[in-house]
Amino acid sequence: MKALVVVCDGLADRPVKAFGGKTPLEAADTPNLDALAAMGITGIVDPVAPGIRAGSDTSHLAILGYDPCEVYTGRGPFEAAGMGIELREGDVAFRCNFATVDENLVVKDRRAGRIEDTSALVDALRNIRLPGVEIKLASLAYRCALVFRGEGLSYRVSDTDPHATEVKVHPAQPLDDSAEARRTAQLLEEFSRRAHEILEMHEVNARRRAENLPPANYLLARGAGVVPKLESFSQRYRLSGACIATTAIIKGIARLAGMKVIEAEKDYIARAKQALLALEEVDFLLMNIKEADEAGHDHSPEKKVRVIEAIDAMVGEFLDFVQENYIVVMSDHTTPCSVGDHTGDTVPILIAGPEVRTDEVAAFSERACAKGGLNRIRGMDLMPILLDLLNKSEKFGA
Amino acid sequence: MKALVVVCDGLADRPVKAFGGKTPLEAADTPNLDALAAMGITGIVDPVAPGIRAGSDTSHLAILGYDPCEVYTGRGPFEAAGMGIELREGDVAFRCNFATVDENLVVKDRRAGRIEDTSALVDALRNIRLPGVEIKLASLAYRCALVFRGEGLSYRVSDTDPHATEVKVHPAQPLDDSAEARRTAQLLEEFSRRAHEILEMHEVNARRRAENLPPANYLLARGAGVVPKLESFSQRYRLSGACIATTAIIKGIARLAGMKVIEAEKDYIARAKQALLALEEVDFLLMNIKEADEAGHDHSPEKKVRVIEAIDAMVGEFLDFVQENYIVVMSDHTTPCSVGDHTGDTVPILIAGPEVRTDEVAAFSERACAKGGLNRIRGMDLMPILLDLLNKSEKFGA
Repeated sequence: MKALVVVCDGLADRPVKAFGGKTPLEAADTPNLDALAAMGITGIVDPVAPGIRAGSDTSHLAILGYDPCEVYTGRGPFEAAGMGIELREGDVAFRCNFATVDENLVVKDRRAGRIEDTSALVDALRNIRLPGVEIKLASLAYRCALVFRGEGLSYRVSDTDPHATEVKVHPAQPLDDSAEARRTAQLLEEFSRRAHEILEMHEVNARRRAENLPPANYLLARGAGVVPKLESFSQRYRLSGACIATTAIIKGIARLAGMKVIEAEKDYIARAKQALLALEEVDFLLMNIKEADEAGHDHSPEKKVRVIEAIDAMVGEFLDFVQENYIVVMSDHTTPCSVGDHTGDTVPILIAGPEVRTDEVAAFSERACAKGGLNRIRGMDLMPILLDLLNKSEKFGA
Repeated sequence: MKALVVVCDGLADRPVKAFGGKTPLEAADTPNLDALAAMGITGIVDPVAPGIRAGSDTSHLAILGYDPCEVYTGRGPFEAAGMGIELREGDVAFRCNFATVDENLVVKDRRAGRIEDTSALVDALRNIRLPGVEIKLASLAYRCALVFRGEGLSYRVSDTDPHATEVKVHPAQPLDDSAEARRTAQLLEEFSRRAHEILEMHEVNARRRAENLPPANYLLARGAGVVPKLESFSQRYRLSGACIATTAIIKGIARLAGMKVIEAEKDYIARAKQALLALEEVDFLLMNIKEADEAGHDHSPEKKVRVIEAIDAMVGEFLDFVQENYIVVMSDHTTPCSVGDHTGDTVPILIAGPEVRTDEVAAFSERACAKGGLNRIRGMDLMPILLDLLNKSEKFGA
């Protein structure tokens, strides 16, 4: 018996006026999701805790059974792992953007015109040496991850990214009184200053200026976090695990948990086949589908409905799998199109497979699942429930 | 106002194909349980936490309000208390079996032919003296409890019971690096060696050999645990408490909680009358009914249905009681006939009595109760809910 967990990022929503008060999930035509709900047990989930606005990162950690309140200090480490940097417990990592600043360090473009190729720039930045710290870098277009490795570091450092244009780059400041935070802030300041010098003079930016493109002449840092000790998924659960995702943060979480990471096909049906193929090898597959969340951030319930119907078609590929295995379909957080960002509402869940105690719910939606046999659980409850169904649990007591 | 908590051991189940997908509890004819559900409030319970496979011991501890994660280290202490050994906090206790081994200490029969009378053997073993430790023993047929009392002991000792036949007795090994664990393992080794010598030569075994019965010539130990400090039930809740049970482990938990233990009548109707009689004296009665669990372990849904219908007849005796008092009916864990062992599914609960906020559920079953007014609670929640209904709670705040 194997388990497939399909996490539809930001799928859950709130009632949409234009849909007569239905949510996009209620308005969409979802015969396959509804069939799974009918043959399964359903419920609602607080990804972290009631009312808490989970990020995709903290929610996925919880879904995999790692308490985000213990292991999550910032997005940096997961982003860095997702970009392929090999990390060690204690490393301090930042998410960065290549940005455009003027001669007064006023931010003109937080993404440097969404520059596509930053590999030469990153190579140049790798020449920077700072005392007592090893520096690691990786980039994907305008996005970049920066890692400091060494003794006496802290993640308690403020963002240099002002999160706005027409304001000056922020100084890196310690967020507590420790010597480690002061030192790390100084290191980030020094790194930023030298990176700016190198980027200003770099031929890539000379070319961009000649082409009237905004130069990528500053590295804005944010989301400092320390790499946690994550017990590997396979040791923790005695299950081999893999992850299919498109976003760096989800891949990073899976990598830090020691799971195999599979680059997702863009087409959903192709991706379903990828998943089934992967499940011939591994016991547990986490599949993240990003696009519903993007529709929510874009305030577009119509787009969300289209994504949901595409997900439903993909889920149709799993109806055979579920005869002898378990499938979970859920959302990682609510991204209401009305809000355009994550909220703390519950999300729907269904679990289908041979031994579930089915309920009377025959539709997969926020409100239908609220009447389900699971009632209300938390993200951290999922792995114990799955391990029990997979017969991988040990008895506590006798 | 008094409270009766009827715990139907292993009652809850999963859908049974032969029953058209009904659980045994759904398939059984249960007019009295359904009547209580109709007049009460219902819900589902995670005995310990979602997905966790509770033992009867950890679940009953939780139901009585003692956190098993704090007080439970192994089954030994509860079994020993159940067999009537007076225990003190810090004692280390083992569950043992009288077993048959050959001259190479290979286990031939883990229960020594289910030997019925071991009192003379236990008396002989009471002569064993070990340095710095007091030894206590009690037995019930082939089952035995062994207690070490003294300074510098630890429960972190492996089983000598190999849990299989045709393999050699396991050595007792320390499970951590502490001097206490090493010493306790040595004591158990030395005790086992000397017990074997005494048992080999004992006239009871000479007789058994002459009768071609397997000799009870080894004491296999398992389930080491340290006796926890359990605040007495009456102090904790200002309620006098009693327990009616048939199994040593449940009696042991009740004894360690300072509750009065009443040996259960075999007949369920007689047992119901016992309960009502006891409730004339005490405020709170816990009643454990073991047989549904046995049906689950035996993979027999038909047997489970018969047990459930007998329980239902018994519960009919309580319909008067509930006019002015509270009754709880629940299961301590799920024992699916398909699995033959405990699983981590939720269990149904009903609470009936004068002041409950009734719901629309009119049947007592796993799925009917999932729609109840209690929603999903945990075992540890029961005592606070009952104390509140009994008007024995204090306000937290003003």
